[in-house]
Amino acid sequence: MEGQPMLMIPGPTPVPEQVLRAMAKPPIGHRSGDFSKVIAEITANLKWLHQTQNDVVALTVSGTGAMEAGIINFFSPGDRVLVGDNGKFGERWGLISKAFGLNVDIIKAEWGKPLNPEEFRAKLEQDTEKQIKGVIITHSETSTGVLNDLETINKYVKAHGEALIIVDAVTSLGAVNLPIDEWGLDVVGSGSQKGYMIPPGLGFVSISPKAWKAYETATIPKFYLDLGKYKKATDKDSSPFTPPVNLMYGLQVALQMMKAEGLDKIFARHQLTTKATRAAMKALNLPLLAPDEYASTAVTAVMPTTVDAEKIRGTIKKQFDISLAGGQDHLKGKIFRIGHLGFVSERDILTVICALETTLVELGYEGATPGAGVAAASQVLAQS
Amino acid sequence: MEGQPMLMIPGPTPVPEQVLRAMAKPPIGHRSGDFSKVIAEITANLKWLHQTQNDVVALTVSGTGAMEAGIINFFSPGDRVLVGDNGKFGERWGLISKAFGLNVDIIKAEWGKPLNPEEFRAKLEQDTEKQIKGVIITHSETSTGVLNDLETINKYVKAHGEALIIVDAVTSLGAVNLPIDEWGLDVVGSGSQKGYMIPPGLGFVSISPKAWKAYETATIPKFYLDLGKYKKATDKDSSPFTPPVNLMYGLQVALQMMKAEGLDKIFARHQLTTKATRAAMKALNLPLLAPDEYASTAVTAVMPTTVDAEKIRGTIKKQFDISLAGGQDHLKGKIFRIGHLGFVSERDILTVICALETTLVELGYEGATPGAGVAAASQVLAQS
Repeated sequence: MEGQPMLMIPGPTPVPEQVLRAMAKPPIGHRSGDFSKVIAEITANLKWLHQTQNDVVALTVSGTGAMEAGIINFFSPGDRVLVGDNGKFGERWGLISKAFGLNVDIIKAEWGKPLNPEEFRAKLEQDTEKQIKGVIITHSETSTGVLNDLETINKYVKAHGEALIIVDAVTSLGAVNLPIDEWGLDVVGSGSQKGYMIPPGLGFVSISPKAWKAYETATIPKFYLDLGKYKKATDKDSSPFTPPVNLMYGLQVALQMMKAEGLDKIFARHQLTTKATRAAMKALNLPLLAPDEYASTAVTAVMPTTVDAEKIRGTIKKQFDISLAGGQDHLKGKIFRIGHLGFVSERDILTVICALETTLVELGYEGATPGAGVAAASQVLAQS
Repeated sequence: MEGQPMLMIPGPTPVPEQVLRAMAKPPIGHRSGDFSKVIAEITANLKWLHQTQNDVVALTVSGTGAMEAGIINFFSPGDRVLVGDNGKFGERWGLISKAFGLNVDIIKAEWGKPLNPEEFRAKLEQDTEKQIKGVIITHSETSTGVLNDLETINKYVKAHGEALIIVDAVTSLGAVNLPIDEWGLDVVGSGSQKGYMIPPGLGFVSISPKAWKAYETATIPKFYLDLGKYKKATDKDSSPFTPPVNLMYGLQVALQMMKAEGLDKIFARHQLTTKATRAAMKALNLPLLAPDEYASTAVTAVMPTTVDAEKIRGTIKKQFDISLAGGQDHLKGKIFRIGHLGFVSERDILTVICALETTLVELGYEGATPGAGVAAASQVLAQS
């Protein structure tokens, strides 16, 4: 039987039927009054989702494009920046910063471990001449399922006073509390195929007044990713270049759904599915890559011991048509990743756990007692 | 009655129902084997559409992003380029070239007039030291409906030998013959919401071996728009960053439709609707901005004399729910533009002409005899 595939990866994430249907509407002109109304509604709801009064702009790019825009608009070649790197995406922001001629100071942690805020504090406190212009942090590291301690690192950035804090929130926005105004986050980048519950093709950047001040003197060349153009157009309920009209239709509906659910409930749902997933993995003798205190609510990375991770992924895909993500770079074959980001319910997570249990039994995975995973997850869900 | 709006602007263009339905499929993982097959099919069909053996890559950007990639990947700051500017988009490629530090020589023509190939010849022949590294030409200037004589300009570029020819084919690709390999076009950029018959959100760039050679030594900084990354991934039926999965579903179907129709028939259809539109406008005493010999097959710009262009646009929208495009910049209010690009049939064009006639009569436009436009268009269609 050709059934409906189940997508449990950290992006693209599952898309609600009403969003898919909205995207299938015939496009209208992006310069029309009717479309201006769509942009106005989306902009207001994006600010709500970002918990900010800052500008939030939408670009036709992937998450990487949004983060590149979030970096290159605020610096000049030679500017010193600190970049946290404890996974694939932190590594990428370092590469982008170097590609555009920044003086990059990488603060590393092992993949699967969180960044150490004290290393940031030390570098920032040493910098009495205020040469550090920016600190770039991946909030939820998608490659490992680690949620970095952004709040603490940001406190040290605020104590420094000069540096901008630039956040990759690609898999944290909409999955965990990220109070941009309360924390004073200058630049926050994200992508549509994650907590937004719509397909890939849109990137978002929020920009604080302090960041706009830096923008004025920043000299890295830019045009398509020039955020000033996006702000100017967004202020008039417009866009500088043709926006992806049908994805915007989908975004309009997805944001309405998120508002109806409410931020607190969205965050609680993500916490619950994360906790249930982690409890089930432990009960099934499957080690977790990230420690509990730094667990991303978007994705859980699992390191099976006696059976190859790709074997588990292949079997659960073949038998149950459930897509899990593999490991990236040196973690390829060593981990599989379960996405529980965006449009994922308690029922979905139980389904994956059941199917995974069956897969482990079939593959003869040592120490996986049938029923133990579901039992552990049920405990978590029952206590909520 | 709330009916179905009719979109007759030069982008976004109308999208076939089967494409809209394909876009409403739930997304799958972009790193899955199933999606690799989609990329492989799309890449092969893009090469067919581009009439080329060169690399053709797809980026998550608007047309401007594709053109920016087509420029910045092949030059270093200070490189001399010639940019043709006879409208909004030629002007934009000049701005981009300047933003990235190129030494830009603008060759201008009045909006509504074609670029003069002899001016390019003169500059290229004078350049005996081969300082000119690129010539950037807008093939179909969307803002005015002028089709520039790319074939002749390209001959002069080929005679020069050193310069790359870089083409904005955003509204010409799929609307008029553009034989990339036959003419030896180095870089050709385009966007999805045009001849491709899908919504905005994807940009395309074709790259010749000569352009790749220039890429190797080009130093303008880039990352998200680094075409080398796209080539490397496309060669493996993959993408460097998350692609817009649902738009790719739509593109897959649209390219299948185009192949079924065939390039010759697609071009003939565009020529016919263009000819019918122009004949009707003349019969209705509506002057055309672009001369017949340089008429874009994507869009016709019309300059009404006794009634304001915006009044005509507003009335036909209100009474018949037909969207026409207005003028840009100094042509705002002076022209309206009829799109006949992509998924537009003879029936569609007749519909617009009928509705426009009725609108003109209602507004008391001088010299517009009811029936004259349709009669003229019918003559053209009957002779085909």
